[in-house]
Amino acid sequence: MTPKVSIIMGSTSDLPVMEKAALFFDEMEIPFEINALSAHRTPEAVEAFAKGAKERGVQVIIAGAGMAAALPGVVAASTTLPVIGVPIKGMLDGLDALLSIVQMPPGIPVATVGVNGALNAAILAAQMMSLADATLATRLSAYKEGLKGKIVKANADLAEVKFKFKTN
Amino acid sequence: MTPKVSIIMGSTSDLPVMEKAALFFDEMEIPFEINALSAHRTPEAVEAFAKGAKERGVQVIIAGAGMAAALPGVVAASTTLPVIGVPIKGMLDGLDALLSIVQMPPGIPVATVGVNGALNAAILAAQMMSLADATLATRLSAYKEGLKGKIVKANADLAEVKFKFKTN
Amino acid sequence: MTPKVSIIMGSTSDLPVMEKAALFFDEMEIPFEINALSAHRTPEAVEAFAKGAKERGVQVIIAGAGMAAALPGVVAASTTLPVIGVPIKGMLDGLDALLSIVQMPPGIPVATVGVNGALNAAILAAQMMSLADATLATRLSAYKEGLKGKIVKANADLAEVKFKFKTN
Amino acid sequence: MTPKVSIIMGSTSDLPVMEKAALFFDEMEIPFEINALSAHRTPEAVEAFAKGAKERGVQVIIAGAGMAAALPGVVAASTTLPVIGVPIKGMLDGLDALLSIVQMPPGIPVATVGVNGALNAAILAAQMMSLADATLATRLSAYKEGLKGKIVKANADLAEVKFKFKTN
Amino acid sequence: MTPKVSIIMGSTSDLPVMEKAALFFDEMEIPFEINALSAHRTPEAVEAFAKGAKERGVQVIIAGAGMAAALPGVVAASTTLPVIGVPIKGMLDGLDALLSIVQMPPGIPVATVGVNGALNAAILAAQMMSLADATLATRLSAYKEGLKGKIVKANADLAEVKFKFKTN
Amino acid sequence: MTPKVSIIMGSTSDLPVMEKAALFFDEMEIPFEINALSAHRTPEAVEAFAKGAKERGVQVIIAGAGMAAALPGVVAASTTLPVIGVPIKGMLDGLDALLSIVQMPPGIPVATVGVNGALNAAILAAQMMSLADATLATRLSAYKEGLKGKIVKANADLAEVKFKFKTN
Amino acid sequence: MTPKVSIIMGSTSDLPVMEKAALFFDEMEIPFEINALSAHRTPEAVEAFAKGAKERGVQVIIAGAGMAAALPGVVAASTTLPVIGVPIKGMLDGLDALLSIVQMPPGIPVATVGVNGALNAAILAAQMMSLADATLATRLSAYKEGLKGKIVKANADLAEVKFKFKTN
Amino acid sequence: MTPKVSIIMGSTSDLPVMEKAALFFDEMEIPFEINALSAHRTPEAVEAFAKGAKERGVQVIIAGAGMAAALPGVVAASTTLPVIGVPIKGMLDGLDALLSIVQMPPGIPVATVGVNGALNAAILAAQMMSLADATLATRLSAYKEGLKGKIVKANADLAEVKFKFKTN
Repeated sequence: MTPKVSIIMGSTSDLPVMEKAALFFDEMEIPFEINALSAHRTPEAVEAFAKGAKERGVQVIIAGAGMAAALPGVVAASTTLPVIGVPIKGMLDGLDALLSIVQMPPGIPVATVGVNGALNAAILAAQMMSLADATLATRLSAYKEGLKGKIVKANADLAEVKFKFKTN
Repeated sequence: MTPKVSIIMGSTSDLPVMEKAALFFDEMEIPFEINALSAHRTPEAVEAFAKGAKERGVQVIIAGAGMAAALPGVVAASTTLPVIGVPIKGMLDGLDALLSIVQMPPGIPVATVGVNGALNAAILAAQMMSLADATLATRLSAYKEGLKGKIVKANADLAEVKFKFKTN
Repeated sequence: MTPKVSIIMGSTSDLPVMEKAALFFDEMEIPFEINALSAHRTPEAVEAFAKGAKERGVQVIIAGAGMAAALPGVVAASTTLPVIGVPIKGMLDGLDALLSIVQMPPGIPVATVGVNGALNAAILAAQMMSLADATLATRLSAYKEGLKGKIVKANADLAEVKFKFKTN
Repeated sequence: MTPKVSIIMGSTSDLPVMEKAALFFDEMEIPFEINALSAHRTPEAVEAFAKGAKERGVQVIIAGAGMAAALPGVVAASTTLPVIGVPIKGMLDGLDALLSIVQMPPGIPVATVGVNGALNAAILAAQMMSLADATLATRLSAYKEGLKGKIVKANADLAEVKFKFKTN
Repeated sequence: MTPKVSIIMGSTSDLPVMEKAALFFDEMEIPFEINALSAHRTPEAVEAFAKGAKERGVQVIIAGAGMAAALPGVVAASTTLPVIGVPIKGMLDGLDALLSIVQMPPGIPVATVGVNGALNAAILAAQMMSLADATLATRLSAYKEGLKGKIVKANADLAEVKFKFKTN
Repeated sequence: MTPKVSIIMGSTSDLPVMEKAALFFDEMEIPFEINALSAHRTPEAVEAFAKGAKERGVQVIIAGAGMAAALPGVVAASTTLPVIGVPIKGMLDGLDALLSIVQMPPGIPVATVGVNGALNAAILAAQMMSLADATLATRLSAYKEGLKGKIVKANADLAEVKFKFKTN
Repeated sequence: MTPKVSIIMGSTSDLPVMEKAALFFDEMEIPFEINALSAHRTPEAVEAFAKGAKERGVQVIIAGAGMAAALPGVVAASTTLPVIGVPIKGMLDGLDALLSIVQMPPGIPVATVGVNGALNAAILAAQMMSLADATLATRLSAYKEGLKGKIVKANADLAEVKFKFKTN
Repeated sequence: MTPKVSIIMGSTSDLPVMEKAALFFDEMEIPFEINALSAHRTPEAVEAFAKGAKERGVQVIIAGAGMAAALPGVVAASTTLPVIGVPIKGMLDGLDALLSIVQMPPGIPVATVGVNGALNAAILAAQMMSLADATLATRLSAYKEGLKGKIVKANADLAEVKFKFKTN
């Protein structure tokens, strides 16, 4: 099956963060691929990947990276596919990765999500693909309803917590 | 003509930044709408907007906001359309707006671009819409080639700058 | 009994921080309610809550949230009751939540306390309600005297710590 | 007429920021006083002020200060009235003042607003006083409606801005 | 014996940091006192302390405090003795306390040392007192020589660490 | 006349900031010297200066520097005189200089004042010297009283500012 | 003449900063080339440049870039020549560029200098080349002596500044 | 054997970070020395070291330091050898050390690597020495190829991770 989304990460040590995107795609039944590629250690592989992704049928790329996180921007430089960047927390609370990913120059955007926000990156990718995929759009709406349900349920549990002057 | 993209901003004082998105859509011949809506001052209008956007045919929403920039996230909360957030520089160099927009909770992503990055937000929107619009994809590729041309030209101009020991 | 204060939080995972407010209200015998509501996951519930709070007799709202902490501001947008915001520490040492809560646009203030400062939020709420409640004002003064007593006692304990050249 | 709100500031150089609070109280017809008092240069005056404010009929105190902004906290230490702190921008983009004001220890809250947020401080004070003043509550609601009107009007103006592919 | 230095701290929980100053004074045989005093919880005690310190023979005051660390500045406001401020690390890596202590307004300096730098505060106090105490000056020079000795010794130990291509 | 205080700065471009210290010493009639010395460009001169200062009768050293501000710490490394550090604002709002000066290792304190706080550095130096100079102590007290007078006067002027509902 | 150093920059708008490097090489009579190349807009040109530099005789590469400054790291990824990175100040005081350049992953270092530090980048390049070029080493030593001379001269000028109690 | 590289560190407690540089030189068979020297505690030793290094045959100096990390800059002030600075993480996430090292004044560069980046410092030193050492250049290229091999291998391992909708 052709992957519709490609998840890449600067280092396999980023997998515990990035696998949340993979698990979401499993749940949504969206075919994907997942690879480690480094803008600094395997630049040719990154370029080959970025240039070939569209032709292979990939629609959205999710790139996670930490520190001087060049990967998302470098991939965005060689494709017109939307690239979603996930800053990975390492040193400096992830602020270095966040700024390295989000502050792109005019012409080459990276759609940046929060620090370690791989799940949100995956949801965002699904939202983009839903523009042309009504089935996915429906599944995504159901997923979002599920999230509401969880917080409603959590609130119900909270109602069980007892305080003397609590009134509900 | 039905707008395909909706540009909103928290305050009309954000227009000098956000109009760069509008000018890009003009150049790309993408129908759009542009409005000022405030998550904090006109919350019902924001909610009505967010809930109705998809049905009106809008495909992508670009939301610019400064300071405690709640607008992009609040809109994202009431739609499954992709929402692109543009942090507007005000106090604190725009860091307040950047963090307020990018650090979304799991389930509700906002595709964040750099501080004052309205042009990049527009290009990102075009990239998303290109997933299902081959004509736009072609036009976008041409635009990106144009950007390369500009830097190649600028470099040629740079070659004219004279230093004694410069060798090219 | 009608709740006079409403404690809300963006996620039930914020309870360990926010329950300090609840315990204070128990001690002060102030009726309160406590709920989880998310500006991003249950926006309609938030709006319904904010619009109805005053009519239900609530006088002050305390809203805790982390990361892109939109909840306090969004509630403040739909009520004229004073809203106290508690930034919850998560990523980035709570600086993201602090800036997201405190940097509100002109017209919609949020009374912000320190990171994880739920107890202070509760005391501040009691100070506001004391403006029209002499009994509470008296109880609050007694509470504050108690705090002084604790530090005086702690200082007395400190006097027991022995150093060779310590003179008191 | 007895002042209901007291505006203080660490230095008369803060007046251009703090007068926005005064102008709001003029508009709301709320009697107020305005003084310069320094926690570091006139500490006895600050203490005398803080201890006497409640007996003089003051209901809320607004304290603006920059840099190592001790004034709001020191005043809060000697009164049970609610104290609203306004960080004034000086060096370091106002971050020093913001942290000095908001990060209060347990027991002594300061209701902090955004950097240079004197207008919001005044609105917040009016919201507190509205808890026991129905007339003021009504006037405040009208004021807030006025704010909405302004942004609706601004949006209407925005509709006049012409772009080729703008659709509304 | 009259204390020559007074160590104060905003909370007894700061003792593990501040006792390093006490241990240094023990080693230098400098009589000192140590107390917990809070600018926000026991303001009168702080003022009485600050005003009386000089007459009691205290020559230097060391004040440690965390978060919105007003104590050093407030003490400096009521004495002409030199006041040394020690930012205590709590939230935000101690940056809040550092800025709250160091950014004093013109006229009221606080001699600030690094985050948790109580030992350095004590050495600095000894350096000040050495201006009029030749015996102490000699003892202090010996102490500083001892520090050099320690690093020379540590370096000698380092020479024992074996690497294949290490040449010394 | 032998200088009692030595003002040094990393670059003559720091003079507009550092001359505030010189003017204060003129007002206090304290003999001083003022020099430009760079830890990075004239290291031998710095070391010779630091080692000789005490013998020449200097009692306190004030060192101003910007960016990677090594000067205060390097001087402190070669003297037991108290060294006061003044972070000079350049890039990064002076935060680089502040951290470079204040975060000294155990054993070598620098008494740091606020960004561009040369006047406070001079007052702090006078406070240190007052420990052994009763005449200076008296003059310094008078100076501090004068500061209070100024703010009292400024407050009196503020009382003249007219607002409709101002009550004093 | 073969260039020994190559100066590249992400945008020709960086020229006012980067030309300080060029002027230094002119003064040192070191042949150099200067070009605008963008990791994000002309990635193939960057890669071709990086891969070919060594063979063309280039010994050191200086790369200036702002914001999400990927250029120095991307070049370093495709060459074993030393790469010096110059963070260019834009938004966020240059902190975004500094972190994007300096926080490289293990294996691919970039020798980073201060924000806008193009002159220092050039001097550093000369220091590297001096390892194998005794003539250049001599010239560089002379240059550094000249810097000392300038500060000695500036200090002499400072001695002319008159204050009443200045003693030298 | 004469050391070609000298590794110094401000404190022996920095050894766990700095030994990564030593291990790299062992692997590359580059003779080196390693010492603890403190700009603040053993300034004469630092100066003697810096002035003598070149004559002893040292080609590159690597200096690691934390907090107010003056060591790299102070060494750079007394040698024309290239100095590589390694900011050591302590308080404030290493940002204090980073800024103290990288923000050098014009004329005295320090080649700064990332926080705790001792391995990169060593690789950078090897790149500099390779300019005049073809054998080392070859060995270094092989080392870099090895790094690529590792990430290619890691990626292969990643291919083994199973998800339902993963396509490769």
